[in-house]
This record gives sequence, structure tokens and C-alpha cells, in this order.
Amino acid sequence: MKNIFYAQSGGVTAVINASAAGVIATAREYPDQIGKVYAGQNGILGALSNQLIDTAALTDQEVDLLRFTPGGAFGSCRYKLKAIEDHKKEYQTLIEVFRSRGINVFMYNGGGDSQDTAYKVSQMAEKMGYPMQCLGIPKTIDNDLAHTDNCPGFGSVAKYVAISTLEASLDIQSMAATSTKVFILEVMGRHTGWIAAASMLARRSGLHTPHIILCPERSINMDALQKKIQHCVKQHGFCVIVAAEGIQNEAGEFLAESGSKDAFGHAQLGGVAPKLAQMVQNDLGFKVHWAVSDYLQRSARHIASGIDVEQAYALGQAAVKACIQEKTGTMMTIERISSQPYQWSIGEAPLNLVANIEKTLPDEFFTPCGMDINEQALDYFAPLIQGTLAPSYDQGLPIYFTKKLQVTD
Amino acid sequence: MKNIFYAQSGGVTAVINASAAGVIATAREYPDQIGKVYAGQNGILGALSNQLIDTAALTDQEVDLLRFTPGGAFGSCRYKLKAIEDHKKEYQTLIEVFRSRGINVFMYNGGGDSQDTAYKVSQMAEKMGYPMQCLGIPKTIDNDLAHTDNCPGFGSVAKYVAISTLEASLDIQSMAATSTKVFILEVMGRHTGWIAAASMLARRSGLHTPHIILCPERSINMDALQKKIQHCVKQHGFCVIVAAEGIQNEAGEFLAESGSKDAFGHAQLGGVAPKLAQMVQNDLGFKVHWAVSDYLQRSARHIASGIDVEQAYALGQAAVKACIQEKTGTMMTIERISSQPYQWSIGEAPLNLVANIEKTLPDEFFTPCGMDINEQALDYFAPLIQGTLAPSYDQGLPIYFTKKLQVTD
Repeated sequence: MKNIFYAQSGGVTAVINASAAGVIATAREYPDQIGKVYAGQNGILGALSNQLIDTAALTDQEVDLLRFTPGGAFGSCRYKLKAIEDHKKEYQTLIEVFRSRGINVFMYNGGGDSQDTAYKVSQMAEKMGYPMQCLGIPKTIDNDLAHTDNCPGFGSVAKYVAISTLEASLDIQSMAATSTKVFILEVMGRHTGWIAAASMLARRSGLHTPHIILCPERSINMDALQKKIQHCVKQHGFCVIVAAEGIQNEAGEFLAESGSKDAFGHAQLGGVAPKLAQMVQNDLGFKVHWAVSDYLQRSARHIASGIDVEQAYALGQAAVKACIQEKTGTMMTIERISSQPYQWSIGEAPLNLVANIEKTLPDEFFTPCGMDINEQALDYFAPLIQGTLAPSYDQGLPIYFTKKLQVTD
Repeated sequence: MKNIFYAQSGGVTAVINASAAGVIATAREYPDQIGKVYAGQNGILGALSNQLIDTAALTDQEVDLLRFTPGGAFGSCRYKLKAIEDHKKEYQTLIEVFRSRGINVFMYNGGGDSQDTAYKVSQMAEKMGYPMQCLGIPKTIDNDLAHTDNCPGFGSVAKYVAISTLEASLDIQSMAATSTKVFILEVMGRHTGWIAAASMLARRSGLHTPHIILCPERSINMDALQKKIQHCVKQHGFCVIVAAEGIQNEAGEFLAESGSKDAFGHAQLGGVAPKLAQMVQNDLGFKVHWAVSDYLQRSARHIASGIDVEQAYALGQAAVKACIQEKTGTMMTIERISSQPYQWSIGEAPLNLVANIEKTLPDEFFTPCGMDINEQALDYFAPLIQGTLAPSYDQGLPIYFTKKLQVTD
């Protein structure tokens, strides 16, 4: 009998709970093979501290509601396991907890760092002679995981950013004659510009915005940027810019270095938009408005992509099926069969190939100036924001799962 | 035969085009009484510069699409007419344009400053002996107009802010164990906290967020604020703050004074969230995230309140009916008949009573500490975010009216 440990890791998304629902609901379909599904409270920390939630406490209706709920219902964590050699005690604790609960399947739902954790756990289990299947379920709004066509969470952010860009563009277009001439939207993306680039989808509306897309893959020549903004205001009357938080100048400095670092050692960024806005106002003399979406973009389940929700669920489902097929050391992936019409299937990639690799935007997506994304990217991005699986509403608010879950004795 | 000049003024909203649709569609129902409906390109500037759009160029389907489109389809402006005595020439230009087009009805769709413009135009027409009906259609996300229960545009921002607060709260709740402890959402509101206060609706979800709501009506004691944040993190593990852009400290200084002023002479604000975030990180040592919604909040037609859209349309419709009834010098209003069940009707208020007055939040909405909104506000806010009149979607994007309109010879 298999008992599963499932946990959510890293920054949460609008659809990570859909993957959880896929795991839990599918496990319930195999009562002869799968016993318990425990969720770690706050990711792997739940395993290290023996704080586990028995998902049997959730009704089928509640599991279904997870499909519609943003955030991480079981709590997530930013915590990276150390090298096995140096921190044997931590790994022994993990094994003890798993042994005491009869857990022999480890499912980790996260991004590149989290797949590294899943890989380390699989190595450790092998070394310690503890029989355990380790399976990865991808998740990251950054869309930067290798060996999967796209990552659950990304399609919904892409949709949020494309729609927000379109809506703000209609706004500034109305105001530009006597007021705001430049609008800057800062989006997430430390090292890759997938989210910023997806704003190009707004152009399908009939408006030609955004005019400028700034990604970390291309360092920014500030003179060239200023000229492009001036040209844009002259030509269109206004200029809409989408900028990733991690953009750098030609000296390789982050435009918005805040100085602090997260648990994985990454610089914590924020504030590119106000910095750019200051430049636009002071150097170019244009009235400017700016927005920073921050958590709103990755939690906006109300406008999530239907495809994204579907894929997130399917990946959780596939992990359970892989578990029944005695697989281990592998991460479920999305394989694209075709873009038009969009067809996809579930694939697999070895955890060690996925861990700690960042997939950046292809060169051919960039225009020659490096400050925009061209139409070649359309085929890739367009299918990922299609469809809706909208939450139900009560009293004007989406109905989300908000129950406080208790850990199991 | 009546010929109408209609124009959009001030900051645009998710539903100001619904009022335009109400005017245009209703005028088409009275072909014997109403001839042309001209829209000013960029508000009253269109009249001053003879840049008028003949709305006959719009098909009925296009007029209907305006109901679903954010921003101002005809262009708005931030422009305040000077005193009649000192700027007679400007007013004479207006009259000349109106006379040359046979315009005898002036409809201005805007906030307090814009109703002042409508009032001045009515005074001027009277003084100059030019027969003209002047009618105001309210619009402002700020909800600060007197003599109307609420303002079109506000309900949709309220809904956006309540849902965004709820979604971001689910996100930070997942992250708080090892990462972000405080989340700050900055919303619009220079002098009034209506928008910030409406975030209290998020509590109907089952989560008890936001924990702190900061409005311009109450100056902020920074020590008390810090203590409340610390208490909140201790009690709940995290703290969600919604702050209006116009909040001030006890010395009466804006927390985010940027130094620049708009055409109406108001200080242009922005950046309260990063300032508060810096304080939280430096003084309290909590990891913090912040978002600034800016234009996104007022253009988010995709999640607009159904009631708001309906009322915006009804006010445009009512202005045309008032015009046929030979009324002048009056602004259409929303009158609340009851909150539970929500019932409303259209009323009227004299333009001179509405112009230049700001309605602030009632004292009884505030908790004693001044840093939160209590349950007494629920009756007022709850009905305003109900229902949806969602746009249709194509290729994952809402279908909006994006046609470039030409001015008429």
C-alpha cells in the first residue's frame, strides 16, 4: 500500500491548488493501491517538523474547490535542503517522519529549486536504503523550467498581464491628450522575461500595445530606451511599457536592487517601475503612471487561464498514475504536440535534468533593438491563455477554499 | 430638434463608456426629438477646438460594445475652465462651436471638477443668451460626489480591490511561514478612503483580511501603526494592509508626496506602498511585498461590478430623458431605496450643489484606532459589487471597442 507525501514549494500560483486537487482526487480513485495522502504543512518543513495534514479530512467538494482557489492551501515554503554530506541529521529527520507515517511516495510541487529538493530526497532515500518513490510536479509562474513546454501557473499570469496591459492601455489612451503620456507595468521575472513577453498578447485586441517590453535577457541601454519612449509618444500620443523586475542596465546592475536576498540566495527585487517612472518624468518630462502587480498577478484566479488550470490538474493526476506505475526520480511535464490547433500531452523528465536549470526566452522572440517581442512569439504564447474555468461567486466575491486545516496527530 | 454634445472628463473608469452607451442608444430611441449626438474628442477640449465625433458613425453593435469597454472611447481630459469673467474668449469659442453645430444640449460625464465645468457652461450660456441645456452625468472611482448615494466607476474598483485583497491574502498566507509576513496594497484615493475602505468586503470570504485599512480621513500615528502590524503578525502569522495613496502622517504630510501637481492643482501622489514597505522592513524586520494597482484598478472591466455597469448606463439614459423633459442645470444621481434587498432609483441634484464638494467616509465607518473599517460599512458597500456583466472573450482576451474614431468635418 502506498502512502503519499505531497507538498507545495516556493512562490505559490493561481493554479498550484489545482495540482493538489489532481493528486488528491486521483488517489481517491485507487483505494486498493493508495492509502493516505498527507500534505506537508508549509512544504517540506511539514515533513521536517512532522506537521502533516491528512487530506482525508477534505470532502470531495472541498477537493474540487481547490481547483478554483489561488495560493497554497497547505502552505508553501522557501527552504532549500543542504548538501546531503553536510547535513545528514536533517535527512535522517525526514526519513524518520516518513517511516513513522508509512510514507513511501514523495511528491514535490514546485519550480527549479524545488525539483532540486525532490532530487536530493530521492538520492538520500537511495543512500539510506529507504524505499521511496520521488516524483516532481512542476509549478512556476516564471515558466523557466527546462524539459517542459510550459509551467503551470505561467499561463494564468500571462493572461493577467495581457489583459491588464490591454485595459490600462485603453485608460492611458483616453488620458494622453492632457495628462499621462507614459504607463509602466512592472511584472515578476528575476532572470527571465517570460511574463513580460507574454504581454505582447494584448496586441491581438486591435490596440498596438505594449510598445516596449523589457526583459532580463537583454541589458538596457538607457539612451536607446529614452529615444524609443520619445518616438512612441510622438507617434502614438502615449507609450505603454511592460518591464520585468529583473532588468539590468549595460553595466549589469539591476535597475531595482533592494539589497535583500531570499532563502535560496536570490536578490529580492522590486521597484523597477518607480525607478523607470522617475527617469521618464525627470529626463523626458512626460507625465507618467506606474503599477506594480506583485502578488496580484500570480494569485488572480478570477481571470486564470482555463488551459492552465486543466494542465495543473492533469499534472497532479499524472503524478499519481506514475506512482502506481512504480516510477521514481521523474518530473511530470507538458509536451506540446501542435500550436494550431493547440494539442498537448503529459510527458516526463528525469529530476536531475530539471533541477537548477533556468530556461530563458529564445533569441528569436526579441526584436533587433532588444526592447520588444516580435510576432514569432505568438504561436508559443497564444494557446496558454485560452479558456476559463471561472470560480463561482457569492456576494460579488469568488468562492475560494479558506478553511484552516489542522495537522494530524 | 435637440443636438447633444457629450464628453468624458477627468480620470476614466471601467464603466464611463457604459454611460456613453446609455446616452447614444437612448438618443436613438427619440429620432423625432433628438438629431445629432456629438462626442467631444478629449472632453471639453473637443468643443474648444471643434474636434467633434459624430456618434452616428457607430453601429448599434458598436454602441453596445461600449458597455463592455473600459477607458474613455472618445478621449478624456484634465482641463478646468477658468472663471467666466477673466476668460471670456474661451467661452465665446465654446459658444461659436456649439452654434455652428446647432448644439443646444451639453452633457458632461465626470467627477466634482467636471460638474463644476458643467455648471460654469450653464452660467455662461445664460449670460451670453445662448439657449442650452446643461446636464451632468456623474463618474468617479473616488465615490466622493455629494448628493448621489454612489458614483459610477466606484463599484467596479471596489470589487477589483476586494477580490485582489482576497487573492493576495491567500497567497501571503501560504508564504508567511518562511517568507513574506506583510503585504501592502496601495489603492487610489487622494482625499477620501472610499476605495481603500471597500477592501473590507474581502472579509466576507471567510478570511479575516485585510487586517489594516489606512484612509486619508485619519492621520496616521506611525508608532501605533507599527504596533498594530507587529500584533497582527504575532496573532495571524501575517498582516495584509490596504492603503490609500493620499494618507498623511500626524504632521499632515503626505506619506508619498511626489511634488508634481495635475491640471486641477492637486498634488500628484504615488508610492505610499513602497514607503510603508521600507518602514516595515527596516523598523520591524519583516519581509514585505507590495503592490500598486494604479490604472489597473480603474480599468479592470473584466471583473467590473454588474450593478455598476447597469447604473452607469442608466445615468446616461436618464440624462437623455431629462433632456427631452427640458431640464437643465442638474446632475443625474443614484438614490438608494434600501440596502437589503438592494434597491435604487435615479434622482437629480442641482449642478451648483454638486460642484467642487468632496464627500468623505462617515466617521462611524472607522474603528476607534482609525486604522480599520468596521462592519457598519458593510451595508453600504456590499450591494455595489454585486453581479457581473462580463465582456465576451476571443483568443483569451476580452473583446473591447478599440476602433480609432475620426472627428467630423
